[in-house]
Amino acid sequence: MPFPFTPLVDKLPSSVPFVGPEALERRTGTKFRARIGANESVFGPSPTVIAAIAAAAAESWQYCDPENHDIKAALAKHLGVAPENVMVGEGIDGLFGYAVRLFVEPGVTVATSLGAYPTFNFHVQGFGGRLVTTPYVDDREDPDSLIDLATRETARLIYFANPDNPMGSWWDHGSVQRMIDRIPDGALLMLDEAYGEFAPEGTLPPLDVTNPSLLRFRTFSKAYGLAGLRLGYCIGHADLIRAFDKIRNHFGVTKLGQVAGIAALGDQPHLNSVVGKVITARDRIAAIARSNGLTPLPSATNFVAIDCGRDGDHARRVLDALVAAGIFVRMPGVAPLNRCIRVTAGTGEDLALFAEELPKALAKAD
Amino acid sequence: MPFPFTPLVDKLPSSVPFVGPEALERRTGTKFRARIGANESVFGPSPTVIAAIAAAAAESWQYCDPENHDIKAALAKHLGVAPENVMVGEGIDGLFGYAVRLFVEPGVTVATSLGAYPTFNFHVQGFGGRLVTTPYVDDREDPDSLIDLATRETARLIYFANPDNPMGSWWDHGSVQRMIDRIPDGALLMLDEAYGEFAPEGTLPPLDVTNPSLLRFRTFSKAYGLAGLRLGYCIGHADLIRAFDKIRNHFGVTKLGQVAGIAALGDQPHLNSVVGKVITARDRIAAIARSNGLTPLPSATNFVAIDCGRDGDHARRVLDALVAAGIFVRMPGVAPLNRCIRVTAGTGEDLALFAEELPKALAKAD
Repeated sequence: MPFPFTPLVDKLPSSVPFVGPEALERRTGTKFRARIGANESVFGPSPTVIAAIAAAAAESWQYCDPENHDIKAALAKHLGVAPENVMVGEGIDGLFGYAVRLFVEPGVTVATSLGAYPTFNFHVQGFGGRLVTTPYVDDREDPDSLIDLATRETARLIYFANPDNPMGSWWDHGSVQRMIDRIPDGALLMLDEAYGEFAPEGTLPPLDVTNPSLLRFRTFSKAYGLAGLRLGYCIGHADLIRAFDKIRNHFGVTKLGQVAGIAALGDQPHLNSVVGKVITARDRIAAIARSNGLTPLPSATNFVAIDCGRDGDHARRVLDALVAAGIFVRMPGVAPLNRCIRVTAGTGEDLALFAEELPKALAKAD
Repeated sequence: MPFPFTPLVDKLPSSVPFVGPEALERRTGTKFRARIGANESVFGPSPTVIAAIAAAAAESWQYCDPENHDIKAALAKHLGVAPENVMVGEGIDGLFGYAVRLFVEPGVTVATSLGAYPTFNFHVQGFGGRLVTTPYVDDREDPDSLIDLATRETARLIYFANPDNPMGSWWDHGSVQRMIDRIPDGALLMLDEAYGEFAPEGTLPPLDVTNPSLLRFRTFSKAYGLAGLRLGYCIGHADLIRAFDKIRNHFGVTKLGQVAGIAALGDQPHLNSVVGKVITARDRIAAIARSNGLTPLPSATNFVAIDCGRDGDHARRVLDALVAAGIFVRMPGVAPLNRCIRVTAGTGEDLALFAEELPKALAKAD
C-alpha cells in the first residue's frame, strides 16, 4: 500500500454498506415506481417550507451562520429547553459521527442491539471502537439486557433507539426512564428518537438536560420531510453540547437547511397531518400484509416491518422480487429480524402498487 | 470532568474560532450594510441554479444519492477525468475533515504555512496532528521551504493553497508542478484550489490522477456562488478517492446541493460573468486602497488583501472600525500577514460603502 493512511483506516473495510435506491435504479436501468424503502416522508415537507426554500435559494451564496443561532433558538423554544442544550448538525448521521468521535478511540467499548442502526456502528468502527451487542427480544431492543451488557463490558457509549429502526417497535417512557436511571457510571446513553413524532403519546420520556449521561437525537428527516436537506439535532447537558464545537464542521449545515428547519417548526399542522397520513398508511400496509398471510409488526414509526414467516433468505427473495418489480423496500440485516421486510408509509398510490406486487413477489420467492 | 471524552478531545481548546458575520450582527444589534468578509460570491449563483433549487425543493423529502453519481459524472466530464477520481463532500471544509482523518492520528506531522487556512489546522489539531509551519515570503506561501520542511520533519500531509487565502497570492503552474514533483516519499500534498476559477490562465497545473501523492480540492462555494449549500470536491488517484468511502457521512451532501451543482456546471457563461465582475471589483478595491494611501496586494482570488502599512494592532483597529460601521471584512490571523485587511469582491454598492467608510476607519485607527 503506497498510501500513508493511518493503521486504523487501513483496517477499515473497503466495502460500502450504503446502497441508495438510485444505485439500484442505475443497476436495473429502471426508475422505482414506489420509493418506500428508506423511511423518507413521501408526504413531503410543508408547502410553507417549500416556499421558504425557493425564496431563500438566491441567498445560497452566503455561508450559514456557523452557530446555527436562529434554528437553535426555534428548536429550544419548541422543546422548552435553552439553546445551549441543543446542537444542530448534518443530520443525525452527521451528529453520530461527531458524538462517536468525542467518546470513542481505539479499544473503547460501545454497546448496542444486534441488528440496530448500522450507520451508528459504521461510525463506531470508523473510530476504532469495539462493538458489543445484545439481541432483540420479541422484535424489541431489550433495555435491561443492554444496560447489563454495558455495565459488564464497561461500555462508554450505549445506543438505543426509541421508537426502533428497523423493527418499528417501542417502549413507553417509563421503561426508557428506568433505563436512563440505570446508565452505568462513566457511560453515556445515545438515545435515537428520529421517529419520535410518529410514536404514541407517552413514548418519549420528558427532557432532562441536567443529566450528564444522556444525549437525545432527533431530526427533520422523518416527520418533517427534509431528509435531503440534512438537518438533525441533539439535546443534552450544556457541557456535552458544547463539546461538539471542538470538532464539528462549523459551517456544515446548509443555509437552506436552517431556513427550512425554522419554517418546518412553524407549521405544526403540517406535521400533525403527516403523522395522521402515516398512521393511515401503516394500517394499510398491515392490512396488505395480513391479506397475504403475513404478520405486520406493530409500529410507532413511519414504516412497518412485515414478518414474512420464514427465514432471512426467503425475505431477501421477497424483497428482491419487489425491487425487480419497481418497489423500493429494505429489510433488517441480521437474524432473526431479517425474516421481515421493511415498508415505509407510502402514498395511496405507492401502497396500491405494493399491494399489487406483494403477492407476485411472495409467489416468486417460494 | 464527569464526561467520558477521549483524552484527545479533552485536550482540544474549547474556544470557537469560527465567528460568522451573523454573530457580529447579533452582538452589535445591527445588520451589516456590506457583507464582504467571507469571500462569498456576492454575485450569487446562476439564475438557472436558483430555478433548479426552487424546482427541486419539494423533493427534499428524499435523501441524496449517497454515491453522488450524477454530480460526480458531471464533474468528471467537466474536468476530463473519470468519476472514480472525484469525491464530493460537504464543502472543502468537510472534505478536509475526512482527508485529515484518513492520514492523521496523534503524533503525525503536518506541514503548512504560518497563517494559511485555519480550518485545515483545526482539523489537524482535532485529530491530534502536530503542525509545523514555514513563513510566507513576500506574502506568498513558499513552496520550496514547505517541501524542505515536510522532508525534514517527515510530514505526512502538506497543505498548500493556490491561489492563496488569506493573501490572494499565487504561483504559476510550473512552480506548483515543481512542488508536486518534490513531494517527499510517504507524504501527501493537499492542494487547495478553492479560488482556482479566479486565477489567471496557467495558474493550475494540469490534472494528473495517476499521482498517488496528491489530492486537489475545489468547491462550488466561491465562483459558483453556492457557499450556503456545502458542495466541495476533491480530485485524485482512484485509490485515494475510494478511501473516503470508509469514513465519510455517505448521505452528507444535500439533494439540493447535488441538483444545484449540476445546474451550476451547466452554466459556464454565468461563471465567466462572475469572474469578470470579480476582476472589476478587485480593481475597484485596489483603487480605493490606493486612494487612501494603502497598498493593495495582487490577487488571483475573489478578494484583495490590503496592506494597511503598519502592524496587526493597527489593521485590527481599521477592521474594527469598518465592522462598527456596518462593513463586514476580515483579516489574516498572524504577523506579518496581519498588517492587512481582507476585502471580498463586492457589488458596486458594497464597494461604494467600503470607499465611504475606509477613510473614516483609517482616521479612527490612527
